Amino acid sequence: MRMSAVQARLERYLELMKKMKSYEEALGVLYWDMRTGAPRKGLETRAEVVGVLSTELFKLGTSSEMGELLAALSEREAFESLSRVHQRSVTENKKEYDRSKKIPPELYQKYVVLASQAETAWEECKPKSDFETFRPYLEQVVSYQKQFIELWGYEDNKYDTLLDSYEPGMTVKKLDAVFGALREKLVPLVAAIAEKPPLDTSFMRRKVPTERQRAFSEYILKEIGYDFAAGRLDPTTHPFATGLNPGDVRVTTRYIEDDFKNALFSTIHEGGHALYEQNISPELIGTNLCTGTSMGIHESQSRLWENMIGRSRPFWERYYGELQRMTPELGDVALDDFYRAVNEVKASLIRTEADELTYNLHIMVRYELEKLLMNDELQVADLPEAWNAKYKEYLGIEPPNHELGVLQDVHWSGGGFGYFPSYSLGNMYAAQMMAAMREALPSFDADVAAGRFEPIKAWLTDKIYKHGRLLTPSEVIRNVAGAELDPTFLTDYLEKKYKEIYKL
Amino acid sequence: MRMSAVQARLERYLELMKKMKSYEEALGVLYWDMRTGAPRKGLETRAEVVGVLSTELFKLGTSSEMGELLAALSEREAFESLSRVHQRSVTENKKEYDRSKKIPPELYQKYVVLASQAETAWEECKPKSDFETFRPYLEQVVSYQKQFIELWGYEDNKYDTLLDSYEPGMTVKKLDAVFGALREKLVPLVAAIAEKPPLDTSFMRRKVPTERQRAFSEYILKEIGYDFAAGRLDPTTHPFATGLNPGDVRVTTRYIEDDFKNALFSTIHEGGHALYEQNISPELIGTNLCTGTSMGIHESQSRLWENMIGRSRPFWERYYGELQRMTPELGDVALDDFYRAVNEVKASLIRTEADELTYNLHIMVRYELEKLLMNDELQVADLPEAWNAKYKEYLGIEPPNHELGVLQDVHWSGGGFGYFPSYSLGNMYAAQMMAAMREALPSFDADVAAGRFEPIKAWLTDKIYKHGRLLTPSEVIRNVAGAELDPTFLTDYLEKKYKEIYKL
Repeated sequence: MRMSAVQARLERYLELMKKMKSYEEALGVLYWDMRTGAPRKGLETRAEVVGVLSTELFKLGTSSEMGELLAALSEREAFESLSRVHQRSVTENKKEYDRSKKIPPELYQKYVVLASQAETAWEECKPKSDFETFRPYLEQVVSYQKQFIELWGYEDNKYDTLLDSYEPGMTVKKLDAVFGALREKLVPLVAAIAEKPPLDTSFMRRKVPTERQRAFSEYILKEIGYDFAAGRLDPTTHPFATGLNPGDVRVTTRYIEDDFKNALFSTIHEGGHALYEQNISPELIGTNLCTGTSMGIHESQSRLWENMIGRSRPFWERYYGELQRMTPELGDVALDDFYRAVNEVKASLIRTEADELTYNLHIMVRYELEKLLMNDELQVADLPEAWNAKYKEYLGIEPPNHELGVLQDVHWSGGGFGYFPSYSLGNMYAAQMMAAMREALPSFDADVAAGRFEPIKAWLTDKIYKHGRLLTPSEVIRNVAGAELDPTFLTDYLEKKYKEIYKL
Repeated sequence: MRMSAVQARLERYLELMKKMKSYEEALGVLYWDMRTGAPRKGLETRAEVVGVLSTELFKLGTSSEMGELLAALSEREAFESLSRVHQRSVTENKKEYDRSKKIPPELYQKYVVLASQAETAWEECKPKSDFETFRPYLEQVVSYQKQFIELWGYEDNKYDTLLDSYEPGMTVKKLDAVFGALREKLVPLVAAIAEKPPLDTSFMRRKVPTERQRAFSEYILKEIGYDFAAGRLDPTTHPFATGLNPGDVRVTTRYIEDDFKNALFSTIHEGGHALYEQNISPELIGTNLCTGTSMGIHESQSRLWENMIGRSRPFWERYYGELQRMTPELGDVALDDFYRAVNEVKASLIRTEADELTYNLHIMVRYELEKLLMNDELQVADLPEAWNAKYKEYLGIEPPNHELGVLQDVHWSGGGFGYFPSYSLGNMYAAQMMAAMREALPSFDADVAAGRFEPIKAWLTDKIYKHGRLLTPSEVIRNVAGAELDPTFLTDYLEKKYKEIYKL
């Protein structure tokens, strides 16, 4: 192919991609709007608008023109003439294009309808703890996932291709190793803590008016370096952050009067996601690389800011006085009691309410079960029993019903198999990144204790944020730590922190 | 054409139209978002998103497929087989399609670029009162408008085709008659009021905190029947209402601490627009008829609620106590003084700050000048002098500079010739509608004085709102009043109201 032809194709490709990004951004605004205050009566029509734009976006991404451009630009000579950004953009897009094209449109259409029905069924069955009515839906969803696995293909383990769609390059082999190492350390640690007398954390239930919580959320976001000229904070039911473009990255949080720590930590959590998106290099705007590189790396940033910084002692040495000033309800609570309360460990049944330590065990339960399901080693009908057994084994407790057990998460009804491990990967990445950052910034603890987050944000931007999806997850962790993912950083961190808190 | 073929074309037409409405709604959300709090740093990328979706929408509306469908469905036999809604939808769409198609795309593209440059030039020249630098831009905009007029064609007066695009069916002949009648009554009335000693309205400048203004805005919107389950109220710089769909009609307002009447009346004004859009019949959702029928009829509803109800004595008999309770700053101001203050008449230079009475004279100045310009009877170079002379003639005052004179409005730089008359048409329609409503609802004043707006909203819905664009503007006024537009209702109303207030 002549270079002028390559150039023409590249330009057309960039144009199409920019168009796709525009649709994505418009959809992002619509979703944000629907979740932060769009009036109830307009939602039915709004859903159709979302349908129309999503369909157009899907058509753009799977069009024969896109296919031809990606094929032409992937040819060796053409590919080698591209810039690094364009090479990676083509590689990523081609991977997604090929994946989409392997599923026959009719099959996918049927699956979308089923997934939507299954989600509705889940919503109805969960409060009734009724697994049996939900079972046939889940069986079908699992059966579709298995068909997709065959169409996408796999090398080693059937579950690998699902993992790869959320965490490129992740495999059962790698995960078994890291989760095994994690489990070995964490299960005994959780058991040892369970032996200790429980903390008195009743002051965490004192009522704090929404307006005070909102003011502190805003204050703390500014402190950690979130840029309000490139974002905004709004209340919602299920907190999320959304990067529409690096100049518009929005954070949402939830204010519960008698549980102020909910907003406090979900704000910092979503703020971590937002710091990532706000600091992606402007040169990636308008490309498919202008986003976090994987769910796991994204989660590493929310966890790093929420738990490793936001629940650390130096952080509260700096901010507890300010929190007390803005939240007089805590006036009589000592810093040390507050610090221990926000780090309370308690084996519990619900993943989303779990603490930093036991959270990983909730994830491992799901990982083990998904792996078994996808490899035909477990039937959907036997899932509840297997779920309860795993909870007993890992956390030492058993759900009294399915609402608090196997039916608690929305993920499976929508077909999100392979997603759960991202949460624990995030914790592991974060611990490893923290260790590297502490080495690079010897004054790290003093900086946090002084509210000096600039050097921290600058280091994270340089190592992670600015690259967006230009680096793969494993390139990111190598760029940060000079090594592959290593779970011992997380276990070391957790053991040190919680042995100190629980005086083990 | 066989009926099954008509049916197939109709279905495809409805599908295309629904798609267009989806793009419009998405764009509506994006505009609302940009004006109510989208972060500054994201706006540049957001503008590109708006550009992509607008281009797609334009392509859909001017596609050859749309052209063929409209041609086929407009054929007599096919057209007669359509429902009333579909007939009107096709007629309206065909009119817009034909209009768009008459402008060569290259010409239109050049014009869009020019209009954007002219707006930027206007923004820079206005604060400097620099008409000469702005002049060449305006000359070009006018020259393009004249080219468009020739391409679109006209019967009687060149300006008619511009009027028609905002107010279907409106002509210079009709407007000359109604504006003539208006001017004859209003110029002497304004002059007579100018002779009277000015009112003391200094209390209107007392500082009222934003939060109090917001609370009253929300309260009064609920009172007049605005449905918060189908809308929301947000602050902005230039207030507007936007009907995304009848279940999502948003109102914005502006809070100025030392000018609380600004938010108060702009909230009721936009609330009037919103009542129209919230009450369009659900059967029109997804069609091009699901909107107000013209700028003039739309403005009639904002003016009717803002001025004829919202600045009436019965209204404040009901709500002044509540306003005082929520705004203790007005505790010592008597109802009568307040009523007169919100109806103060004062010849002023700026249209957007004008009172109910003089507002129409500001419009007539612009109407006269636009008509002359489009008919080659006035050159852009002579516009400032003509502007000042008209202000002297109609309002008895002359602008000291162009910022307060010919450069005050954005409309002309963007090519919005023909738009201004809508504002006064709105006032005239509103007065005529009010007279009909008073006849139909004999307890009108008592209802307002008791805060009973249900019968009023029901009557307006039945006569105007529910029809959306299913009726033309002149069908609407005939449906309401059994007659064509008649300016004497407005002059009678204004004379009666202001002779009483100013004791003439």
